[in-house]
Amino acid sequence: MKRVLLKISYDGTAYHGWQIQPNAITVQEVIGDALFKILGEKTNVTGCSRTDAGVHAKEFYLHFDCDEKLPADAFLRGLTALLPSDISVTEYKEVDPDFHARYSAKAKVYQYTILNSRIRNPFLSRYSWQIGRPLNVERMNDFLSRLIGLHDFEAFSSSGRTVKDTVREIYECFAEEKDNIIKITVKGNGFLYNMVRIIVGTAVDVSDGKIEPWDAEKILLSKDRNLAGKTAPPEGLSLEKVIY
Amino acid sequence: MKRVLLKISYDGTAYHGWQIQPNAITVQEVIGDALFKILGEKTNVTGCSRTDAGVHAKEFYLHFDCDEKLPADAFLRGLTALLPSDISVTEYKEVDPDFHARYSAKAKVYQYTILNSRIRNPFLSRYSWQIGRPLNVERMNDFLSRLIGLHDFEAFSSSGRTVKDTVREIYECFAEEKDNIIKITVKGNGFLYNMVRIIVGTAVDVSDGKIEPWDAEKILLSKDRNLAGKTAPPEGLSLEKVIY
Repeated sequence: MKRVLLKISYDGTAYHGWQIQPNAITVQEVIGDALFKILGEKTNVTGCSRTDAGVHAKEFYLHFDCDEKLPADAFLRGLTALLPSDISVTEYKEVDPDFHARYSAKAKVYQYTILNSRIRNPFLSRYSWQIGRPLNVERMNDFLSRLIGLHDFEAFSSSGRTVKDTVREIYECFAEEKDNIIKITVKGNGFLYNMVRIIVGTAVDVSDGKIEPWDAEKILLSKDRNLAGKTAPPEGLSLEKVIY
Repeated sequence: MKRVLLKISYDGTAYHGWQIQPNAITVQEVIGDALFKILGEKTNVTGCSRTDAGVHAKEFYLHFDCDEKLPADAFLRGLTALLPSDISVTEYKEVDPDFHARYSAKAKVYQYTILNSRIRNPFLSRYSWQIGRPLNVERMNDFLSRLIGLHDFEAFSSSGRTVKDTVREIYECFAEEKDNIIKITVKGNGFLYNMVRIIVGTAVDVSDGKIEPWDAEKILLSKDRNLAGKTAPPEGLSLEKVIY
């Protein structure tokens, strides 16, 4: 028995997120089915993150255990042939049996794309949140920079999932603008349910003047989801990098 | 009664091409339905081109006649709100009653995208043709450049539609490569059914050594579809520009 780590990439448009659920197609299920065909036996697929429906992953890792003897190259080609065109597998690596796609991750980088334009871009509709009114990137950054560090992010998480420990460390958190596209990058050691989408939605509320940049500390300390801003839509979000 | 020219843009992934057909959603039908809601009366929508299922248009023009009194800006906002996110309307212009979206076009520019990589890119799967083996862009250009000029392009058209006059003039026809992406640009005064896709498919056959670059003249003169190469898949194709 060996443990294999796969690096994949997927366009989340057609999927109800990563994690297997009844009556909906998920990336975990599609990968699991393809692995079953190659390995000839069921295996548990463990992902590095539970992305929501519509969220993308430029870089995503998963692990599974198997007795597979195929060379890595042949395995990758076979698996790719079994997967739909919106999922790619780019790396195959044998890892120690105690390596875990989720718990061994030291940091993750998410990126959120806002199309800040009154004019729609059909080719970005699956990959961005379109906002017609002008956004104030400086104000957004004033807010975002206050989230950097070790904080209890309970106020920035949806109640959908309950975890005991809501303290996370954010290493980078900033917005950049170029040609009507605003990209918000958040790098941290872990993320709560909907955390990046609520951070982005709150940053937009800060830009709109509904929340002040210096309210960041107050919201964090309150641990009250109602004090943070709206939840940004999923299609603008992408898991960009996982650091082990 | 006035004639209005609209400039639109669409991601063709979800549509069975431009032209209305039974039992399939087309861009023409979606636009026609939205116009009906705004104008309160049925109007004929005439497009500049009949793009195939899955083909995109970064720039597409259509005209229709109406008695609309709404200011252009309000009309554009209203129409946009009624259209799905994969279609955008960017310009509204009143034109002479004898202006025709299709027949008044002096030239059109199509661009075809090939992802020349063994590794799949999920985010380009709807917008490119993935070819894993290395392509020879120099050989492709040797072939493509021989199509420039006034020729009978019957051999480069599918028999699906019959037009009497199969002579067209190509002004530009070349391939460019950058970071595993090969873009083939074809600018001409008009295009036959599937013409760009057959030109691209043939260029790939030329790269693969199945056809010689200097066979271009022979294929053109033969007027025989069987001498040209394969038809490239639709998702790599986009109408980039229409010149009036």
